[in-house]
Amino acid sequence: MIRNEPGNVPIFEGVSVSTQAIEAVPLRPSPVDLVETFDRILAQRESIEAVLRDAFDKGAKRVYLVGSGGSYLANFNAAYLLEKHLADVTVHHITSGEFLAREPLGVNADAIVIAGSHTGGTKETVASVEFAKKRGATVLAYCSNADTALGAASPNFWSYDSKTTTGDAKQLFTAVFAYAVLKTAGADLDFEAIERNYAKLGPAIKQIHEKVDAEYGELAKKYHTENVTYVVGSGPGQAAAYNLSMCYLMEMQWMNSGFFNAAEFFHGAVEIVEDDVPVFVFLGEDSTRPLAERVRDFAVQRSSKVVTFDSKDFELEGFDEEYRYLAAPHILFTLTGRLAAQYAILNNHDLSTRRYMGKVAY
Amino acid sequence: MIRNEPGNVPIFEGVSVSTQAIEAVPLRPSPVDLVETFDRILAQRESIEAVLRDAFDKGAKRVYLVGSGGSYLANFNAAYLLEKHLADVTVHHITSGEFLAREPLGVNADAIVIAGSHTGGTKETVASVEFAKKRGATVLAYCSNADTALGAASPNFWSYDSKTTTGDAKQLFTAVFAYAVLKTAGADLDFEAIERNYAKLGPAIKQIHEKVDAEYGELAKKYHTENVTYVVGSGPGQAAAYNLSMCYLMEMQWMNSGFFNAAEFFHGAVEIVEDDVPVFVFLGEDSTRPLAERVRDFAVQRSSKVVTFDSKDFELEGFDEEYRYLAAPHILFTLTGRLAAQYAILNNHDLSTRRYMGKVAY
Repeated sequence: MIRNEPGNVPIFEGVSVSTQAIEAVPLRPSPVDLVETFDRILAQRESIEAVLRDAFDKGAKRVYLVGSGGSYLANFNAAYLLEKHLADVTVHHITSGEFLAREPLGVNADAIVIAGSHTGGTKETVASVEFAKKRGATVLAYCSNADTALGAASPNFWSYDSKTTTGDAKQLFTAVFAYAVLKTAGADLDFEAIERNYAKLGPAIKQIHEKVDAEYGELAKKYHTENVTYVVGSGPGQAAAYNLSMCYLMEMQWMNSGFFNAAEFFHGAVEIVEDDVPVFVFLGEDSTRPLAERVRDFAVQRSSKVVTFDSKDFELEGFDEEYRYLAAPHILFTLTGRLAAQYAILNNHDLSTRRYMGKVAY
Repeated sequence: MIRNEPGNVPIFEGVSVSTQAIEAVPLRPSPVDLVETFDRILAQRESIEAVLRDAFDKGAKRVYLVGSGGSYLANFNAAYLLEKHLADVTVHHITSGEFLAREPLGVNADAIVIAGSHTGGTKETVASVEFAKKRGATVLAYCSNADTALGAASPNFWSYDSKTTTGDAKQLFTAVFAYAVLKTAGADLDFEAIERNYAKLGPAIKQIHEKVDAEYGELAKKYHTENVTYVVGSGPGQAAAYNLSMCYLMEMQWMNSGFFNAAEFFHGAVEIVEDDVPVFVFLGEDSTRPLAERVRDFAVQRSSKVVTFDSKDFELEGFDEEYRYLAAPHILFTLTGRLAAQYAILNNHDLSTRRYMGKVAY
């Protein structure tokens, strides 16, 4: 296990120490095309709704949200929204691997399968689309660009067309899919107000990046050498917690970590909390917020290393107060990327440096 | 963070070192009443079926499996079985905390809510039952004994009536519920054969306990001082992996750990695997086995500390070969308890010793 002690340069496979020591990792910039990418995604709403309207006209009853890793966790918010607002259309949030291996019997002509991937080449996700088509389901998919295996496999396909706005783009795409499902399935919501507020999200996120980039260097300095970091979230906020723990800390910084649902935290993991155990808690603005607040309230009494990421700490220019909850999952998610960018500098470990992914077959 | 170095006695809050050093922790015995408890649970099948038959006669469409911690993870197998064998009845596997906080709109007269707890006092689970009743759902619940808050709250209630057969009892109870749902909802399965094989499960588990108790001391000796232990499972086997990681290692041994779905492992966590990182993999006999095999095959090439728990390693006296899959999740689960019992001896940390649970309010 590499220990990232302060001042130490971790040695990566195939990279000489001297190269690493000379070339300091720069701050990964806030995506330059974030606002345009968000606008591009939001503009695809109507064509998505058209496909879904057809499916519901034909009697669709079940929605499967399918993806792996970052594209699995992108669906925590969408699953929450559908479960919250629909009674007779059920939602299933599942990894592509489990979806394929389980072959749920409910994947048939009454099912809508929404699959996502960044690269568009994730093999389990492409295979999930093939399986869902064979079963007669209505299949929709999205990824970074159309010229991909997923683009070729999917009868209904959309892309965000950015190489720099990635995780944030997926978070938004799944929300657009969720609201398109809610609208076409007849949920009782003010979709005009929802759309008006989402249009303000891109600029609001950019402002947040500027604010936290000025602050998160200190946070990273305090925590980048931890032996293990526990990360907790609830409801839609689980996306941020899972992403920080598994994608940023483990995958991109090779640091030990564990992710927990806030409600579950009290049924086991809580016992490892003591003074020097870092507990990072994500607090959103949905109905599951009290679950995460409970973890925070407990942990701050037992550990000096509790960090909270709270969407309420940020102004949201142009948002109606009652629709702030739309933005909260996107805020929490985007914070993880800006924090990871600071860890990368201090650990002198670029976020794109991998041991295995793209290097060895598995 | 307590480090359980070999030969060191961890210091627990409120317990003097000398006491701990003198009173060695004995091996927690295999539950003496396991076979009788299993028989008692299986004998309750018909009354469970009667309640479910009524619910399906009235048009039930959705099943919510609700619980926290050990009673949440007890449902991985049940959720798998329902998803595998039913198209028009959907299953939702959710923690009591999230269930309550989300208040899914689908919890209405068309829903069946099955709630479980060991103590019968888990407040989120009792509140989940109250919420489900208010919404008009058919509510079924089980716990260790009827004289509990959950017993009082639930209109349809069953208990396993044991203080020593606990986790194994819950695994079996959720399977009985799942097959009762499948039978009354009209799944195309040979229920007579299933029942005949389940009747053999208790004695088979007892035989497995004897075998592994003679072996697991060595395994525990090798791994009880690890800095962090990663545990992986797929499908029904996720119950064992989650249980070992969060309930046994973290809650009961105060050791660092993280749990991952086998398919997800390749989308992030894989990058922390190197020679001295322990990766424990659970291998069952269901359709998700290849997901866990893939983790094993990758990990053994990168780490010298890969441990596999494979249900295929055990004979199952009296089982038809084609029904071994019924037993596999129960085998994997029961192995975790026997391994934990050995860790407890070596860490001189009784499995019932807690920092917080039952000691402080949260």
